[in-house]
Amino acid sequence: MSEGPSAMRVGILTGGGDAPGLNAAICGVWRRLQDVEAVLVPFRDGWGGVIEDRVVHLDPRHMHELVTRGGTILGSSSANPYRDPGRDVPRVKATFARRRLDALVAIGGEGTLLAAERLHREEGLPVVGVPKTIDNDLSATDFTFGFFTAVDRAMTMIDQLRTTADSHHRVMVVECMGRHAGWITAYAGVAAGAEVILVPERPVELNEVFQRLRTLRATGKESAVVAVAEGCRILEDGRLLSSDEKDEYGCYKVGGAGEMVARRIQHALGWEARAIVLGHLQRSGPPGAFDRIFALRLGAKAARLVMERRFGRMSALRNGDVTDVALSEAVGERKVLSPTFIDRYQDFFLVPALSP
Amino acid sequence: MSEGPSAMRVGILTGGGDAPGLNAAICGVWRRLQDVEAVLVPFRDGWGGVIEDRVVHLDPRHMHELVTRGGTILGSSSANPYRDPGRDVPRVKATFARRRLDALVAIGGEGTLLAAERLHREEGLPVVGVPKTIDNDLSATDFTFGFFTAVDRAMTMIDQLRTTADSHHRVMVVECMGRHAGWITAYAGVAAGAEVILVPERPVELNEVFQRLRTLRATGKESAVVAVAEGCRILEDGRLLSSDEKDEYGCYKVGGAGEMVARRIQHALGWEARAIVLGHLQRSGPPGAFDRIFALRLGAKAARLVMERRFGRMSALRNGDVTDVALSEAVGERKVLSPTFIDRYQDFFLVPALSP
Amino acid sequence: MSEGPSAMRVGILTGGGDAPGLNAAICGVWRRLQDVEAVLVPFRDGWGGVIEDRVVHLDPRHMHELVTRGGTILGSSSANPYRDPGRDVPRVKATFARRRLDALVAIGGEGTLLAAERLHREEGLPVVGVPKTIDNDLSATDFTFGFFTAVDRAMTMIDQLRTTADSHHRVMVVECMGRHAGWITAYAGVAAGAEVILVPERPVELNEVFQRLRTLRATGKESAVVAVAEGCRILEDGRLLSSDEKDEYGCYKVGGAGEMVARRIQHALGWEARAIVLGHLQRSGPPGAFDRIFALRLGAKAARLVMERRFGRMSALRNGDVTDVALSEAVGERKVLSPTFIDRYQDFFLVPALSP
Amino acid sequence: MSEGPSAMRVGILTGGGDAPGLNAAICGVWRRLQDVEAVLVPFRDGWGGVIEDRVVHLDPRHMHELVTRGGTILGSSSANPYRDPGRDVPRVKATFARRRLDALVAIGGEGTLLAAERLHREEGLPVVGVPKTIDNDLSATDFTFGFFTAVDRAMTMIDQLRTTADSHHRVMVVECMGRHAGWITAYAGVAAGAEVILVPERPVELNEVFQRLRTLRATGKESAVVAVAEGCRILEDGRLLSSDEKDEYGCYKVGGAGEMVARRIQHALGWEARAIVLGHLQRSGPPGAFDRIFALRLGAKAARLVMERRFGRMSALRNGDVTDVALSEAVGERKVLSPTFIDRYQDFFLVPALSP
Repeated sequence: MSEGPSAMRVGILTGGGDAPGLNAAICGVWRRLQDVEAVLVPFRDGWGGVIEDRVVHLDPRHMHELVTRGGTILGSSSANPYRDPGRDVPRVKATFARRRLDALVAIGGEGTLLAAERLHREEGLPVVGVPKTIDNDLSATDFTFGFFTAVDRAMTMIDQLRTTADSHHRVMVVECMGRHAGWITAYAGVAAGAEVILVPERPVELNEVFQRLRTLRATGKESAVVAVAEGCRILEDGRLLSSDEKDEYGCYKVGGAGEMVARRIQHALGWEARAIVLGHLQRSGPPGAFDRIFALRLGAKAARLVMERRFGRMSALRNGDVTDVALSEAVGERKVLSPTFIDRYQDFFLVPALSP
Repeated sequence: MSEGPSAMRVGILTGGGDAPGLNAAICGVWRRLQDVEAVLVPFRDGWGGVIEDRVVHLDPRHMHELVTRGGTILGSSSANPYRDPGRDVPRVKATFARRRLDALVAIGGEGTLLAAERLHREEGLPVVGVPKTIDNDLSATDFTFGFFTAVDRAMTMIDQLRTTADSHHRVMVVECMGRHAGWITAYAGVAAGAEVILVPERPVELNEVFQRLRTLRATGKESAVVAVAEGCRILEDGRLLSSDEKDEYGCYKVGGAGEMVARRIQHALGWEARAIVLGHLQRSGPPGAFDRIFALRLGAKAARLVMERRFGRMSALRNGDVTDVALSEAVGERKVLSPTFIDRYQDFFLVPALSP
Repeated sequence: MSEGPSAMRVGILTGGGDAPGLNAAICGVWRRLQDVEAVLVPFRDGWGGVIEDRVVHLDPRHMHELVTRGGTILGSSSANPYRDPGRDVPRVKATFARRRLDALVAIGGEGTLLAAERLHREEGLPVVGVPKTIDNDLSATDFTFGFFTAVDRAMTMIDQLRTTADSHHRVMVVECMGRHAGWITAYAGVAAGAEVILVPERPVELNEVFQRLRTLRATGKESAVVAVAEGCRILEDGRLLSSDEKDEYGCYKVGGAGEMVARRIQHALGWEARAIVLGHLQRSGPPGAFDRIFALRLGAKAARLVMERRFGRMSALRNGDVTDVALSEAVGERKVLSPTFIDRYQDFFLVPALSP
Repeated sequence: MSEGPSAMRVGILTGGGDAPGLNAAICGVWRRLQDVEAVLVPFRDGWGGVIEDRVVHLDPRHMHELVTRGGTILGSSSANPYRDPGRDVPRVKATFARRRLDALVAIGGEGTLLAAERLHREEGLPVVGVPKTIDNDLSATDFTFGFFTAVDRAMTMIDQLRTTADSHHRVMVVECMGRHAGWITAYAGVAAGAEVILVPERPVELNEVFQRLRTLRATGKESAVVAVAEGCRILEDGRLLSSDEKDEYGCYKVGGAGEMVARRIQHALGWEARAIVLGHLQRSGPPGAFDRIFALRLGAKAARLVMERRFGRMSALRNGDVTDVALSEAVGERKVLSPTFIDRYQDFFLVPALSP
């Protein structure tokens, strides 16, 4: 990318787990900065690329179509200058100096943005942020990009699994992403008409699940879908049976929650049950329209923050509008499904997993 | 569906063009009414079914999964009792009496809801509404269901068409739905990175389009996508060349706008151009997650209006919340892309079609 | 379905695991039998439905579109009259008599067809078969329906997972169906450009896999996909490390093969690796065009065998033509990837997993 | 790509309309040539690139994944040295000399391969071919790549359109590719359960179509799909009403066949009918598994022909095996749906369009 002698120079990085929309956010930053003929300095693999001063070459002819692509063209990592701040914070500052950066846009989750916030507050570095978490559990913003794409993917896979559930008269237990918040599971489960939904926010007794399934079966239903979050909390006689524990079979499991629930259902009800873990299929591939437009806007807003030299802030969605908040808000309270949300769906979806 | 002697009896119909989410809205009405053990009386093919007292049998075992399905299980039509009110309004009232209806939920667009509003206002019939238009051009609600599914479909098809555009170094002119409003075209075009977007809200001179494409080509770009709304308004030397006119080839065309633009581009620039009309592929098939959840909520809200005997109103989304408004608002001003929207995207998307 | 007094009466069942195309095969049987106005007697859940004389109601208005749907409308099970032949074989014969069956079409895998073959050979029952195994490991037929749909699904999921692999510079280990034969893994792996493919037919030393990945990485490749069959055979110093064994972490695992390979790669190469199990997502949902047409033809052929009273036979694809073979051939040798196949791909795909 | 002093140098080009699998064929050529460390010289835009000596840069790190991508990375055109042979044939020969080509692989349809054949026969140039036509109408090979992907796409779109057809009780007339052969229409129509299929190979009276639809409607069917090939031949009182003619409305139409059929059905039966043209959506986007593997094999076979110096030949699929035939066979008789094929489906699909 050509540059005049006085062009503004803006670094950019993506950190943490990938989410559909990262490339759209990069695209939004780039497009807005085109207006002022700024030069983009694209760091590789999150903060690691800034620490080690490694950059990526971006072909300007392909920047326009970046909005359509999954993953992140910059690469990502969970590297963080505050793991070894004595060594790495100076290296970050050296990179800023060497690259003559006027600003840096950090796109990432809690870890990435926390580092951005400290670098701004403690070191005075000109940093702005774009929040990212596929789990949608960030209180600073109404939604995070990638979330609705993940919901659509999980829903579509549940839709598809119905043919096997129906043919074999089975319960399919579908494990969705969400260690601490049930957003993806709840939205995908409601959208796909899951018969039971289990989320971290509302511990549920196994007996409630069994009872719900027995009732359904008594009405002539021969198959069912149980949507469970990775981090759902399940009780047996008041004792937490979370997937973080070893289960009765003595193993910690990848896909622990779904497998555990499926085995218990089959054992208790004599209703054949199978577990499937959707895993990375929820986060890989191209973003949906909602997330593309949303991430473009968040990226463009971050670029505007840079142009206005409003450092220490990040773009966010509040009440349907793109606005900005302090970077420190990214690391506040985790946003979980509210009792209101759970109750709203409980009362007409009859979802016992969401009931008290 | 079994019924006690005193069960509330609620009619339901869907009218107008189909939109993904109609079945989810029906499902939402049904689920909420289950709480009070109301009886659903499902009329066939919109107001036509009420006029002629034709009902559909719904299997309660399949109502739960209705949320996942495209189209409308009730069937739809544009029949309207006010075409021949002297004959048909009494027939509607007779059906209400014969079926002992305590209420009726009308799901539909402007025509369907206008009839509902008059039947309530002039005849005192206990009617509530759920607004529906895939074009998203209803000012009474932030969004309408089906819209985001249509955007996702159009975007995905544009993504796919890129391989042919690239291989043949062509301009693909993609005609999207939207006779009076450019919502689908604008959202799908932005999400798919369309190089030019043409909408009804902003008349554009053909020369501007040519100039934009020439500039792109000069940077080395060999293919491009032009997203055009059915009803886009194109000027040639200040004269409107809309697709409603005969073009210079003497024919009125289905797919007129796209075809006309493609021919002009190819002729003026010597850049091979092809038109494709996405048509019904934008509105058919299962809804996306956003529309399923949204339509469920609108349907449930309408059922609650029935339970609260708040007739003459319809459910709506306002500032992100599901609420209710007067039925008369359904037939107010058409909501089009705002100058603000167009300007926002103009300034970082460089979309000349959206510029003044 | 109406019937004349002398109409031929033909039972039909589907047994074993579901595969995309079962409904198309049913549709093919039905369509052909329409020509002779035969009556279809659809048994529920495989041989179980014949033993217990349980039938399914099929709506003739929906038979036509059955070709498009995944799963089996008849339901399936692994019930078999030869589990308790003293009790159940007479019950099968009683059902034949009570239902006045002129023939029965059994659609299923090895277990289902073996029972069909014995009932024909030992009891003289008028049975024909349609072979089904999603694993494509039946030597009696060139391909089995469902296989190509499963390959397409697995390939599409691998394509999608590339964005996450690329963004995180990871190895994705993708576990495909195939306990005894590597067909799905090999076809999907080749089609998706997997860098390593591991199948049951060719035991491979872990060191070979590591070496292959090291070589790739040395050329600058930062991510890779390893496609592994459930039943792949992996050696460590000549000792079989199959997924049927407990691994070094002391657990037997669902998704054992993929998880084991991922852990070993990450440990040996320091290259971050993740496993994903595609599982039921490969077999659920609607069939692709190839399998729809193929299953229709196999079903129609089976109906013709019935009409020609050529019992004890089943339809099959041989050298691209639909023909028929003895039912006993269904239970012969398992068809696995041939050395020729493996060598063909080895020599130009450089797939070490397929090399000696 | 590095090269030793004596490395074999092999040109490659793709010509004609794009088809899913072109990149896979390029990938197959490249992979096989890797074995002998040959140098690939990739010409841009078919014969045009050879005439003007324009080449494309291919990044070896991305060649492996080329198998997954739609379109052609080389670009394509219908340029042909025999349009102006006096000028262009010498230019082709000059490029061969300047680039020191030991061979050239021409991937393309009738036009591309005919030029290859003449250049080999008349000029002695070392050329081999890979046949390509999405229409599957090449008699030299059992199938052509891209065809099954197009069938799957058309089928999936028809499946999707059913929800709109059902909701509005309409006939959807779906126009598929195929000017001279009905392969795509017939396969997609059979796979999607189309109620009527109209192909070029079998002229049909409109009255037959009307009669078929009336019969269906009399059985209670309220919607239907009519699959028509672009080049279908429709008669009215024995007079051909092809889409190449002006219709009664005075216009020649893109999408002429489908539109014409829809209007006539609606007029004659009073059954609402809509036409949709699938167009480029059938040929764009990534290939399916079948076509990827098939095109890889054809490409690899062509590379082997080069290595064995068997010029003047092209790879082909014959009776399920990849083999080679003379280039001159590419330009023989067009392969159309056989009467046998039509009869086979006629007799159990009751497809009148395919009946005599």
